[in-house]
Amino acid sequence: MVSVSLGANKYGKAENRIVRVYRDTPRHEIVDLNVTSQLRGEALASSFLEGDNALVVATDTQKNTAFAFAKEHGITSPEDYLQILGAHFVDAFEWIDGGLWQAEQYEWERIVVGGIPHDHSFVRSGKAVRLAAVQKIGGATHVTGGVKDLVVLKSTGSEFSGFPRDRYTTLAETTDRIMATSVTGRWRFLPEAVAAGIDYNGLYAEVLEVLLSTFATVHSLALQQTLFEMGRAAIEARPEIAEVRFAMPNKHHFVADLAPFGLENPNEVFYAADRPYGLIEGTVVRDGVDAAPDAWVDLPAFV
Amino acid sequence: MVSVSLGANKYGKAENRIVRVYRDTPRHEIVDLNVTSQLRGEALASSFLEGDNALVVATDTQKNTAFAFAKEHGITSPEDYLQILGAHFVDAFEWIDGGLWQAEQYEWERIVVGGIPHDHSFVRSGKAVRLAAVQKIGGATHVTGGVKDLVVLKSTGSEFSGFPRDRYTTLAETTDRIMATSVTGRWRFLPEAVAAGIDYNGLYAEVLEVLLSTFATVHSLALQQTLFEMGRAAIEARPEIAEVRFAMPNKHHFVADLAPFGLENPNEVFYAADRPYGLIEGTVVRDGVDAAPDAWVDLPAFV
Amino acid sequence: MVSVSLGANKYGKAENRIVRVYRDTPRHEIVDLNVTSQLRGEALASSFLEGDNALVVATDTQKNTAFAFAKEHGITSPEDYLQILGAHFVDAFEWIDGGLWQAEQYEWERIVVGGIPHDHSFVRSGKAVRLAAVQKIGGATHVTGGVKDLVVLKSTGSEFSGFPRDRYTTLAETTDRIMATSVTGRWRFLPEAVAAGIDYNGLYAEVLEVLLSTFATVHSLALQQTLFEMGRAAIEARPEIAEVRFAMPNKHHFVADLAPFGLENPNEVFYAADRPYGLIEGTVVRDGVDAAPDAWVDLPAFV
Amino acid sequence: MVSVSLGANKYGKAENRIVRVYRDTPRHEIVDLNVTSQLRGEALASSFLEGDNALVVATDTQKNTAFAFAKEHGITSPEDYLQILGAHFVDAFEWIDGGLWQAEQYEWERIVVGGIPHDHSFVRSGKAVRLAAVQKIGGATHVTGGVKDLVVLKSTGSEFSGFPRDRYTTLAETTDRIMATSVTGRWRFLPEAVAAGIDYNGLYAEVLEVLLSTFATVHSLALQQTLFEMGRAAIEARPEIAEVRFAMPNKHHFVADLAPFGLENPNEVFYAADRPYGLIEGTVVRDGVDAAPDAWVDLPAFV
Repeated sequence: MVSVSLGANKYGKAENRIVRVYRDTPRHEIVDLNVTSQLRGEALASSFLEGDNALVVATDTQKNTAFAFAKEHGITSPEDYLQILGAHFVDAFEWIDGGLWQAEQYEWERIVVGGIPHDHSFVRSGKAVRLAAVQKIGGATHVTGGVKDLVVLKSTGSEFSGFPRDRYTTLAETTDRIMATSVTGRWRFLPEAVAAGIDYNGLYAEVLEVLLSTFATVHSLALQQTLFEMGRAAIEARPEIAEVRFAMPNKHHFVADLAPFGLENPNEVFYAADRPYGLIEGTVVRDGVDAAPDAWVDLPAFV
Repeated sequence: MVSVSLGANKYGKAENRIVRVYRDTPRHEIVDLNVTSQLRGEALASSFLEGDNALVVATDTQKNTAFAFAKEHGITSPEDYLQILGAHFVDAFEWIDGGLWQAEQYEWERIVVGGIPHDHSFVRSGKAVRLAAVQKIGGATHVTGGVKDLVVLKSTGSEFSGFPRDRYTTLAETTDRIMATSVTGRWRFLPEAVAAGIDYNGLYAEVLEVLLSTFATVHSLALQQTLFEMGRAAIEARPEIAEVRFAMPNKHHFVADLAPFGLENPNEVFYAADRPYGLIEGTVVRDGVDAAPDAWVDLPAFV
Repeated sequence: MVSVSLGANKYGKAENRIVRVYRDTPRHEIVDLNVTSQLRGEALASSFLEGDNALVVATDTQKNTAFAFAKEHGITSPEDYLQILGAHFVDAFEWIDGGLWQAEQYEWERIVVGGIPHDHSFVRSGKAVRLAAVQKIGGATHVTGGVKDLVVLKSTGSEFSGFPRDRYTTLAETTDRIMATSVTGRWRFLPEAVAAGIDYNGLYAEVLEVLLSTFATVHSLALQQTLFEMGRAAIEARPEIAEVRFAMPNKHHFVADLAPFGLENPNEVFYAADRPYGLIEGTVVRDGVDAAPDAWVDLPAFV
Repeated sequence: MVSVSLGANKYGKAENRIVRVYRDTPRHEIVDLNVTSQLRGEALASSFLEGDNALVVATDTQKNTAFAFAKEHGITSPEDYLQILGAHFVDAFEWIDGGLWQAEQYEWERIVVGGIPHDHSFVRSGKAVRLAAVQKIGGATHVTGGVKDLVVLKSTGSEFSGFPRDRYTTLAETTDRIMATSVTGRWRFLPEAVAAGIDYNGLYAEVLEVLLSTFATVHSLALQQTLFEMGRAAIEARPEIAEVRFAMPNKHHFVADLAPFGLENPNEVFYAADRPYGLIEGTVVRDGVDAAPDAWVDLPAFV
């Protein structure tokens, strides 16, 4: 007879698509979120072990709460909203030890009509998706912000050479290539900054600008180097940030071989490949801050 | 013994991801296309009927030509490029009667560094994908432009009422709702305008602006009405356009029911639903132009 | 002042995910559909032109009817169900001239426990998705069945040679390659067979078997030839079928170049490419049947 | 001046689509993998910090090696293949401390022709995707197997009741509902079993069968309970398994409200919802085994 136990677990409601409209004046504001709420608790083991739901705050209840809070507390920023949401579950149910609350935010721009941004008509900006997460674990609360699907490309200013060669190496060295990636990044906020209050929206805008300008201006010897400099720039820009994690696929653009057709191709025509792709992942940490591995539990740190 | 024949057919290479960089000056330009080339010809029946490839211009050759032409002829606009590509196949191979050449174009914006747009670093705008197609059929050539994935939303200024009610009708009438859609549109150019030459890039930008501003400013009684007004505005804006076809999903945003929680919800908190969705499709035609059903053969008119 | 008119149009509710469980005995049956209903009618122009909804059978009503009919009439087959659904709208609303009703069906297999298929537990077969459509147009009714996402591969028994060579041709001839495709096919039923009644489920199963065995056994000189033989086999197998349309991407598997590593590779290791891919589309028609272009209006014939 | 350091990182080539054909006899075998290789090493910091690539085993080299090894060593199972691949990098390059090698495997079934499975023609089974991963970290090697996209449904035999109710709870209790999920699971192999050698293919088939039959036969009081029983069953079935991690979305099927149409609906017609969905994640651990958190680093444990 084999004996087994329950290990790490959590449960909740994923991908609640909540759109909050602020319409107190004719100039509406919209906040468009995809919210996931998940709870943890030692006492919840009985639901796994015995199917006893006496302590299971229903995933439907988590959903309802997420929608209700969009009205009761509003959504100042995804980070603020998730903190309020997470605190509620831990406070309201004594057996809930913690959880993970995540959001994606989709940005909308006002449609410009005759040079004037419209009051209540919007077009979705597809330039990137904003990320936020609140982790409650071991009595602590960790807040992270982030971004995904930020697709960038530089048509020169990127090299890759000096790498070791073995029996399986065929890649030529290059001093001029296209470098393109789709940035996924998450930044952890310092607990003391969270406690003091952060302008999360302003910070997000500034970090995005810093990431883009760093990508643009760094002459790249490797995507690794660019990644590190982007993390450094974000940390330098905002004292609230303790560390940044990035996953950056190297979206290869191969120079099309036009020689068979008698054509030169001095880096003018490229084939954009899908798979395989390089995949560079790295963390940049502010010196002197406490490590917080718990903050990243169950977050797709690198994916 | 059953006797069968070959009906409509075509073949080619789909989704060639061609990126063209113009780097004659330090200020690079990039054109990022997804190109599909397909050929038709009566004589090609032998490949279907007997596996005789003597007349089959290989799909690999079509791919090579698409890449080579990006160098030889450049890519002024997707519409121009596809016309040159299509003309080549019909001219070079006497047994090729026609074909369909399609492109998606992905827009990139320059990264702004310190207020100055960068020379060779770009961020992909995800706001919409541009479409173009060239149809050669029955001796004629038809050119269409278009757009997809243009996601728009208005948080008020949209009604839906006055519809008939039967046994299966439960929908309440509303004079204030969110209206959101993801616009797919294709516009056919007048043959005489194509012959005279069109500034396709300028036209695309203008049509997009007109579509957005019309969506924003029309007080909508139904998505059908908004669709028609958007088509009318595009045709009014540009004399080169003969007709416009739209497919517009009605992306429902339902008012969240917060009453069980003792909360009012005067159109402030919405649930954005995935499926099912409304699907409104319609064509707006300039009066007096010749119909051209052939132009739309095998194009996803409404999808 | 530019004058415009309304051209082709239709509207409705897309992707209603309807799951019907038959539970009259302990041995349950499930039918899992994705249903789209769209209506057409000359009189509906007023909704586009003036936002007058007096004749607009709401898309929500179409949805309700689709769900209600799953109970009232059951779902014998997607083809039967869509015919009943379409007939209702045309009969119940005199101003509805026609429409297009489509369904995808997802197949579930019983989970086998101890050698015995379970009464009410199922695992989804991902092998293919079944398609059905009913078109009501011009007073006629057309019924089509189909399949998509049927992914097949043969590791030998496929050649491609004898094709013409021009300046842009680099492809080598081959007498042994992998051939792989993802079959999308639609077959139109003869009106007289529809009128007489068809065992649509039995027919689907038989056609799938015939498509697979034909793909397997034809020694292929070109994907075009395989496509044609598959269509011929379906028509030969079932007298109810008037014609078959196929779209078959040629999912390229390239022989990996292992020569730089001192390794031979006699068609043993392949790189499965994503894009670009070949795209072969063709129609096989039973001789002597009336053509029915209307049947295919707004159906993604080749996509 | 802010000071920063490099934290956790790795790099490599993702999603190498390798298809291996065994054709020594007319009865071919195919193995279809999607392989990701990533390396870690303290000394690699210089690539991030200085763009110094002297130690960077190129991602292109990793790709080449993955393809070459498919020929040199063959692919007995994804777990075996990844172990050989990972060992190579750690052995061949002294500065490579470890890494993560992952694979998805797509299953193909022989096409049956006249009752006989064909020698070289296959149809892709879409029933599930097999997972494997090898983690080399801290001098240890961890091997995991797994599955994803295993979609199961039971049309009865599932309850959910007895849960706590608060201000935000509206869910009704039910003793009969559809339960459906798409299983993602990963199982860690005991190091001693790995050392002794495992029939990974046989084990995968058996675990899949056990997961399915357990899902089918457990009368479910909660998805949590079903998850735990599925993990227990896998561990009981195979002594090589130390622990199992599952992520199971609760794919809600809501009873369609047909009352407005005067119809009863005793769990016969359901609406299959997309989002939000429940998300239950849990780990089942064999008692007495050493915990191995390192095994799961950077694996999407729960996603």
